[in-house]
Amino acid sequence: MPYLAKWLFISSVIGTCIGIASAIFLLTLDWVTDFRETHLWLIALLPLGGLIIGLLYKHLGKDIEAGNNLLIDTIHQPRTTIPFRMAPFIYIGTLVTHLLGGSAGREGTALQMAGAIADQFSKPFRLSESERKILLIAAVAAGFGSVFGTPLAGAIFGLEFFLIGRLRYDALLPAFLSAIIADLVTKLCQVQHTVYQIGFIPAVSVLYLLYAILVGIAAGICAATFSRTIHYINSLFKSKISYAPLRPFIGGVIVALAIWLMGTTKYIGLGIPTIVQAFHEPLPAYDFLLKMAFTILTLAAGFKGGEVTPLFFIGATLGNALSYIIPLPVGLLTGMGFVAVFAGATNTPLACMLMGIELFGHECGIYAAVACIVAYLLSGRTSIYQKQMIGEPKH
Amino acid sequence: MPYLAKWLFISSVIGTCIGIASAIFLLTLDWVTDFRETHLWLIALLPLGGLIIGLLYKHLGKDIEAGNNLLIDTIHQPRTTIPFRMAPFIYIGTLVTHLLGGSAGREGTALQMAGAIADQFSKPFRLSESERKILLIAAVAAGFGSVFGTPLAGAIFGLEFFLIGRLRYDALLPAFLSAIIADLVTKLCQVQHTVYQIGFIPAVSVLYLLYAILVGIAAGICAATFSRTIHYINSLFKSKISYAPLRPFIGGVIVALAIWLMGTTKYIGLGIPTIVQAFHEPLPAYDFLLKMAFTILTLAAGFKGGEVTPLFFIGATLGNALSYIIPLPVGLLTGMGFVAVFAGATNTPLACMLMGIELFGHECGIYAAVACIVAYLLSGRTSIYQKQMIGEPKH
Repeated sequence: MPYLAKWLFISSVIGTCIGIASAIFLLTLDWVTDFRETHLWLIALLPLGGLIIGLLYKHLGKDIEAGNNLLIDTIHQPRTTIPFRMAPFIYIGTLVTHLLGGSAGREGTALQMAGAIADQFSKPFRLSESERKILLIAAVAAGFGSVFGTPLAGAIFGLEFFLIGRLRYDALLPAFLSAIIADLVTKLCQVQHTVYQIGFIPAVSVLYLLYAILVGIAAGICAATFSRTIHYINSLFKSKISYAPLRPFIGGVIVALAIWLMGTTKYIGLGIPTIVQAFHEPLPAYDFLLKMAFTILTLAAGFKGGEVTPLFFIGATLGNALSYIIPLPVGLLTGMGFVAVFAGATNTPLACMLMGIELFGHECGIYAAVACIVAYLLSGRTSIYQKQMIGEPKH
Repeated sequence: MPYLAKWLFISSVIGTCIGIASAIFLLTLDWVTDFRETHLWLIALLPLGGLIIGLLYKHLGKDIEAGNNLLIDTIHQPRTTIPFRMAPFIYIGTLVTHLLGGSAGREGTALQMAGAIADQFSKPFRLSESERKILLIAAVAAGFGSVFGTPLAGAIFGLEFFLIGRLRYDALLPAFLSAIIADLVTKLCQVQHTVYQIGFIPAVSVLYLLYAILVGIAAGICAATFSRTIHYINSLFKSKISYAPLRPFIGGVIVALAIWLMGTTKYIGLGIPTIVQAFHEPLPAYDFLLKMAFTILTLAAGFKGGEVTPLFFIGATLGNALSYIIPLPVGLLTGMGFVAVFAGATNTPLACMLMGIELFGHECGIYAAVACIVAYLLSGRTSIYQKQMIGEPKH
């Protein structure tokens, strides 16, 4: 009971703060995205924006540059308090990235803002080392749950994301309460989350189960390719360009040129209109490859933001592309791809299964579960989070 | 990929066998329940039935008497193959219990049938020790998923039920595939699962979250009381009556007399009509106490069956009783109680949360999650499964 009361209190405090932060982030991100789409000349400034982000982090943010990996490290081995600076830095970096046309997401930002905010409470609340770990897990749960409007998936994500293959229950209550409260607060701030309509879901059969496994296989391979390539390009940037702020500048030049040459903004930013479209109609089969290229270039060069919404885009359009060969409804294939690529890239199969249920309804639960678990198994030891540790081998 | 193919094959084999076994069990159980309700004089034979079950297990089933605990033990420390006899014995024992008016459930039967069937394949398939563990986890997942029509909850139950506070992912794919296939097969055998209508679910608010916590607290206390009392009464029977077959005989006399004195069959068998009713209208507030008493007497004396459907009854009527003091819709309170008491009694909060989602729809997910996790935390170290080990402290 004292445990329950204590964590109800802490979860309410951090859930409220993180929920408000997520709301501000989502509302300004929406505004920034709209502004870019009506002022496309801004994309020409992408290299300059990259340079500014690079300088900012080089001179004022060396200790917070590791981002999500710093969070994971701190959960495994708590050290000094995460600097609060991490929150405004990642927030500004992400807005600049999106305003000027980089291809990036939101979850990295939400997680880092949440972790930086929550960790400020670990001293005033006099938390022990193990309680501080729980606090950070709860913060990640709250950040994820509120930014995507999926509190249950957020809670499980917080429990799953730092350790592969194992789930410990000591942070169960704090993770769920924080995620639920943060999501509630974000929604109270009038944030509208995108609604994805998966449409008709056929009754499960043996054949359809095999199709779901196929989607999982494709998603697992795609996720592993994404994780490996982004780490490879990132080290390429690092080895070829020794002055850090130049990396996002050069990356910005390439991305901006590519956008100009292709004449479309379809593959930059979050790409939500395309994700929504993928649920309803067949799209070009190469969409997922192009989004992958744009996102990898943007993030590996040093722009800020998350990988997850681009992974949703990649997964959704991959699932959509599979509708050319797998005879399942396009909405269902898109939905499976959406969650499964993410499951493979982050090694969080149960969070992604729940995300499928929360976003598309429980009727798709079995399809989402099979696709996510197969993708998780097939993505091997790769992950977009390099500091993720292996708790248990996958099989 | 070879791992995937291998377990797809094994899961298909055991999933099909277990799915058929569950279908036969559910169909005959329905028939037996209907027959009893139209031939109430059968209840007078309950002591005799108890004696027969007792003699059967004493003379031919000493090695399988531990039931679910034997399964858990074998998962922790694989020994000789579980005797196939376990399946027909528990099946017959359960049917006799239900035919003659004991208060019992189905999950123990489903789990033991599943475990006994699946373990027969461990030698022909030449499984290693750790693969045999996975096989048994998958079997439990399949048994649970198919008997309740909730494959996702079944899969997580299989992963959760033998170890408190930790979830290992090495059996993830086998558990999900087996549960999904078994459920599919059971449904193909024309088995109809009961549909529970939770009705209106209000949007989550801080106040309603507190109410859900209250339901969880009540459910946790109720679950701990159930687990402790059933173990206590069981050892009482054992210490007072040394000749084992006499225990269910005496228990049968007490239960049959109580039914006769009360003049109702409401609290015996599975009690599904009352569970369904609880979702729609307020019931007497003492219903959960009476069901608890009948179930504890029946099972502690040595009758066969599971605890879970009675726990659903107890939880549903407890939730229903709370509608006298908590201003939430009666259907929602009933649904929360339904899954939360079970979560507390078995220490499987995530399986129960998913069960809530699968049975009542994802709209109730947050309520189910909070109630289940709080009940799990408050039920302490008690469990209806005495052999369940502690992987991590609850907090």
